[in-house]
Amino acid sequence: MHNTHMVDSSGAPVLRVAVAGASGYAGGEVLRLLLGHPEYRAGRLDIGALTGGSNAGTALGTLQPHLLPLADRILEPTTPETLAGHDIVFLGLPHGQSAAIAAALPDDTVVIDCGADFRLTDPDAWTKYYGSEHAGSWPYGLPELPGGRDQLVGARRIAVPGCYPTVASLALAPAIAAGIIEPTVTVVAVSGTSGAGRKLDTSLLGSEVMGNARAYNIAGAHRHTPEMIQNLKAAGGVDVSVSFTPVLAPMSRGILATCTAPVKVDGAQARAVYEKAYADEPFIHLLPEGQLPQTASVLGSNACTLQVAVDEDAGLLIVVGAIDNLTKGTAGAAVQSMNLAVGFDETAGLSTVGVAP
Amino acid sequence: MHNTHMVDSSGAPVLRVAVAGASGYAGGEVLRLLLGHPEYRAGRLDIGALTGGSNAGTALGTLQPHLLPLADRILEPTTPETLAGHDIVFLGLPHGQSAAIAAALPDDTVVIDCGADFRLTDPDAWTKYYGSEHAGSWPYGLPELPGGRDQLVGARRIAVPGCYPTVASLALAPAIAAGIIEPTVTVVAVSGTSGAGRKLDTSLLGSEVMGNARAYNIAGAHRHTPEMIQNLKAAGGVDVSVSFTPVLAPMSRGILATCTAPVKVDGAQARAVYEKAYADEPFIHLLPEGQLPQTASVLGSNACTLQVAVDEDAGLLIVVGAIDNLTKGTAGAAVQSMNLAVGFDETAGLSTVGVAP
Amino acid sequence: MHNTHMVDSSGAPVLRVAVAGASGYAGGEVLRLLLGHPEYRAGRLDIGALTGGSNAGTALGTLQPHLLPLADRILEPTTPETLAGHDIVFLGLPHGQSAAIAAALPDDTVVIDCGADFRLTDPDAWTKYYGSEHAGSWPYGLPELPGGRDQLVGARRIAVPGCYPTVASLALAPAIAAGIIEPTVTVVAVSGTSGAGRKLDTSLLGSEVMGNARAYNIAGAHRHTPEMIQNLKAAGGVDVSVSFTPVLAPMSRGILATCTAPVKVDGAQARAVYEKAYADEPFIHLLPEGQLPQTASVLGSNACTLQVAVDEDAGLLIVVGAIDNLTKGTAGAAVQSMNLAVGFDETAGLSTVGVAP
Amino acid sequence: MHNTHMVDSSGAPVLRVAVAGASGYAGGEVLRLLLGHPEYRAGRLDIGALTGGSNAGTALGTLQPHLLPLADRILEPTTPETLAGHDIVFLGLPHGQSAAIAAALPDDTVVIDCGADFRLTDPDAWTKYYGSEHAGSWPYGLPELPGGRDQLVGARRIAVPGCYPTVASLALAPAIAAGIIEPTVTVVAVSGTSGAGRKLDTSLLGSEVMGNARAYNIAGAHRHTPEMIQNLKAAGGVDVSVSFTPVLAPMSRGILATCTAPVKVDGAQARAVYEKAYADEPFIHLLPEGQLPQTASVLGSNACTLQVAVDEDAGLLIVVGAIDNLTKGTAGAAVQSMNLAVGFDETAGLSTVGVAP
Repeated sequence: MHNTHMVDSSGAPVLRVAVAGASGYAGGEVLRLLLGHPEYRAGRLDIGALTGGSNAGTALGTLQPHLLPLADRILEPTTPETLAGHDIVFLGLPHGQSAAIAAALPDDTVVIDCGADFRLTDPDAWTKYYGSEHAGSWPYGLPELPGGRDQLVGARRIAVPGCYPTVASLALAPAIAAGIIEPTVTVVAVSGTSGAGRKLDTSLLGSEVMGNARAYNIAGAHRHTPEMIQNLKAAGGVDVSVSFTPVLAPMSRGILATCTAPVKVDGAQARAVYEKAYADEPFIHLLPEGQLPQTASVLGSNACTLQVAVDEDAGLLIVVGAIDNLTKGTAGAAVQSMNLAVGFDETAGLSTVGVAP
Repeated sequence: MHNTHMVDSSGAPVLRVAVAGASGYAGGEVLRLLLGHPEYRAGRLDIGALTGGSNAGTALGTLQPHLLPLADRILEPTTPETLAGHDIVFLGLPHGQSAAIAAALPDDTVVIDCGADFRLTDPDAWTKYYGSEHAGSWPYGLPELPGGRDQLVGARRIAVPGCYPTVASLALAPAIAAGIIEPTVTVVAVSGTSGAGRKLDTSLLGSEVMGNARAYNIAGAHRHTPEMIQNLKAAGGVDVSVSFTPVLAPMSRGILATCTAPVKVDGAQARAVYEKAYADEPFIHLLPEGQLPQTASVLGSNACTLQVAVDEDAGLLIVVGAIDNLTKGTAGAAVQSMNLAVGFDETAGLSTVGVAP
Repeated sequence: MHNTHMVDSSGAPVLRVAVAGASGYAGGEVLRLLLGHPEYRAGRLDIGALTGGSNAGTALGTLQPHLLPLADRILEPTTPETLAGHDIVFLGLPHGQSAAIAAALPDDTVVIDCGADFRLTDPDAWTKYYGSEHAGSWPYGLPELPGGRDQLVGARRIAVPGCYPTVASLALAPAIAAGIIEPTVTVVAVSGTSGAGRKLDTSLLGSEVMGNARAYNIAGAHRHTPEMIQNLKAAGGVDVSVSFTPVLAPMSRGILATCTAPVKVDGAQARAVYEKAYADEPFIHLLPEGQLPQTASVLGSNACTLQVAVDEDAGLLIVVGAIDNLTKGTAGAAVQSMNLAVGFDETAGLSTVGVAP
Repeated sequence: MHNTHMVDSSGAPVLRVAVAGASGYAGGEVLRLLLGHPEYRAGRLDIGALTGGSNAGTALGTLQPHLLPLADRILEPTTPETLAGHDIVFLGLPHGQSAAIAAALPDDTVVIDCGADFRLTDPDAWTKYYGSEHAGSWPYGLPELPGGRDQLVGARRIAVPGCYPTVASLALAPAIAAGIIEPTVTVVAVSGTSGAGRKLDTSLLGSEVMGNARAYNIAGAHRHTPEMIQNLKAAGGVDVSVSFTPVLAPMSRGILATCTAPVKVDGAQARAVYEKAYADEPFIHLLPEGQLPQTASVLGSNACTLQVAVDEDAGLLIVVGAIDNLTKGTAGAAVQSMNLAVGFDETAGLSTVGVAP
């Protein structure tokens, strides 16, 4: 049990944060961002329990050697007891493990789930794709979607979006909402391998992924498909079909999504729709005409860069988007959601500056 | 001027081969394949002049250090004179330089152009995409297309297909020819960097491409678009629209293409079409159901692996194909075409075994 | 000419910074760090002129698309005029160009040179390795060397160390200073390609570097050799020989150096020397026994991680060190030096948290 | 039980080959080379049983999708029974499993072990590094070492060298044998990840190895150290100390070794020693002066490229060598040894042409 209701030297309250699954990629990225968060640096955010499954008892430094300031921290088991007494709990757990943990935490604890358990609102879609019983749905941590920000302010349970749905939804929602495309969209997204998590799988070995590009879970088989449909349907108020093909590329981080749909307007009109939609968004950048998104430019940043074009001959809108799957696609969205939930500046601890080259 | 009409020790004629552009990636790969060609090993194929532009006078070993058996060869200038006296001439030159060279070579010389100059049959399409006058069109070096093989047997001028059109055409021609899709297709293809050639361009530096995925030449801007349209139109006898998005991935070799189109049949019917189309093709492999193509599996090989599926919810055919852009996508097609042109076994010197992992 | 002597809203002075060579890797990394610097965020550090050579007139966003907040900045020519009126000027220029620029700037401007021009104190070593006349030497921006910090406090001219000498010197100086090794050291260092700069060179193309490891400038030919000798000689007060072999590896960033020398003590004694030497250093981390440095852990961070061992059979000390060549190896050292020069907290704007995986 | 004593259509005997561990990297590379072997193409070499441990029952095509011609082969269990009845058996098994299998095979079966079990002649060295009882030693499959070829001609048991010892021994044996260096050598070798095998280990995941260089098993801890010492001691007839540091680099294949030792001669004399030592070796190439080995140039080839230089200031010989760890470092050596053992041309099925770029 951890102490709570701390105050800092000025008497201001100190929020205590726990990270469950701190040995995974999502948990590690949450910690990376928290260590650079201005509220943490100012002493108003405290990093409490770090938990792991089979890694409990191990020093974080051997598992996440890039997090030098926390190297001596020992992982605790992921239980309601170790997570209790914190104001904010990030969950970076395998799918299906969040519901039980969340249920055991107080209602006023901010629980931010980086897993899939509470993303889908449709129980049938959940069961079709995940095979288990639907646990319910929580406010969805993508503030840039229409109406997305409101539900996050003050929220106490937040479902962080999947990485592919993040970029696909940001790329297509404005066009769907404005009615400038037919709602039959195709998404082909190239992803780095960290999107698969820190999972022992032969096909994820370095020797197998380097020098290699491969598609997987094609033809509607990927679990992120219903999440894209849900977001776009909500944005446009119409039925939407999504053909989604994920492609694994030889890089650790990054998603580059190419999204196409039959278009009703010309290129200038399409561009105007996106300019308007994201004019005030701090993290969504429509690039100047002719400049195309690339994943290296957003590495480690919370930005999503977009380019929009119309293929006149094919009659299609082409939207290309890039994010870092671990930042804007996971942990950055989690921290952005936390900021909204507890009243910090929404952009605190998040950057639009990538680490390149 | 090089000697011709040689004979080997048994009195059989020896064919002399020249490679123009031997310092480039296409020329280097042609040489790699020739060095392993059984006719070369048997002494019935002789590697004559190797030429380069600004690299003339340099030893091949400093430019192509992987071609150890030819390391001491000195590059000659790329002129009609240095290329004269050969039975077979491979051209690996920048676009626009092949026509003049080819015109100066005898009609009975087998000239195999790895460049774009003679690929397009439509002068307007050429001028629209390349901006110069159309030089004409030659037999197209993709024998697996409907009717493709016949025009190559005994040919004396051959245009090697572009790398992206190779895999996109192989992936979609059967469906177009069988009329099982609407001819409005979308191609998103991930490519290794060698497809851009050995070109000094900041965006191709290792520091820029590693850890990076980026789209380029979107919305119909890529020059390979009209070539795809030409092939698919010929395969189906119908007008075809192609939306093509190329994506650069951090690997040297390989193309992984995801091709989609509205489909009129179910998955089993679609699969049957492809099984039939490629049943007798030595280099085109429809993978077992559920197994997906990956570029590493075809590295250095002349194989094209395919998988076919129908996304029932989206109503689309999904065809994923993988090739090595430098082998089946360029130099392998060139050697395969040479084999057909001069009467060697079509598969001689070409492998379906990739170099992996 | 830029405005200077600004004040912020509270009346505190605002320091104006210029970056010459903002389109290169060193300049880009300086800007990345400045954008995250707390003094910049607080409005007490202002980013003024950004200059480039052939890129003058171009928007930074097309050259450094990862620096989104500065995307609209237009590069100015690199001249004394454009750099005048700034309090701090970072130089990220090709070797040999810094001296003339620096001479034209006022003596009280803090000039921080990421190039080699002012690193070597010995004119003969300079001329032997660089072939031109020696421009002189400036305080050396590696505060962790014995006596290194003192000369940087309040300095107005600073020479940022080379990337290889940074890690080699940090790895070996304690042992040399403590006299526990013979001063005949061997350094084999694996580097990412960004160390070569944004230079158009065929051997740096992605197609050439991916899947490839190669040594270069062996047997004393690398220009960083005399810089290592200079640092180690100063640390130990003895003559030192350094055999240095650089190896290029297929990654953008990072140096992993393996340093060996005949040793006079056992492993525990050697470890004690390093523990003592770096106990109070915020950026130098001796890892726990058995844990080895890796470049990914320090990507984007200013940390240098070290491990020390004694090979009893071979009678050698083995020190392995990792840095990010662009951060601690260049721009991080530059910012750390700036902090010392102008009186900021030494660690401001610099992190020991890497971006991984 | 497999058929043996086959004859081909001309009545010549057909040799049957089995590969144990066909799902691993060593086994897969043996098969890749066999599929291109002229005796296989001529029908005089037959690929019989392919076995796997936990993968028995699985089609090879799902495990080694690059071996298309064998895609339908089903893996059998690795037992003496499945391996019986073959003339040649390649073992690509985890260390410690070869002895029992080999003991159960007839004495006249050619057994070629890609594992470590029979490499070391010194039981104490074995036990110190492998912790188990010494199984004995077999003829060592590195024909280019002094006296190495003789013991392989007609051999029926062969121990394939380790990958690191292959390149280190080839790089240093001539100097040791000629007495031009002091026998205190340092080897720092950068390796691709396939050297670690197809092993499920978090540190070998693509996300962990890409963009990363790291040392491991430093200070004499790597098991290949005693093998290097054994080879060099035999070459020179003197005691030798070897300091070996392996470094993992982000590439699948290739080893680039930097070897140093105190030198007694000048550069020209050193070069002459190597020219003489390898003048007649088909796979060992001393590169022209000034050209340095790189792993990409030997990818998939059986070549070892070397460069030799003397660092006059440091008094050291520097030898840099490159091999493909899976080819010359494992399976190529195995096939080369098979060729010698059964009387094929030594170079049959092996190439000095790399797959680049």
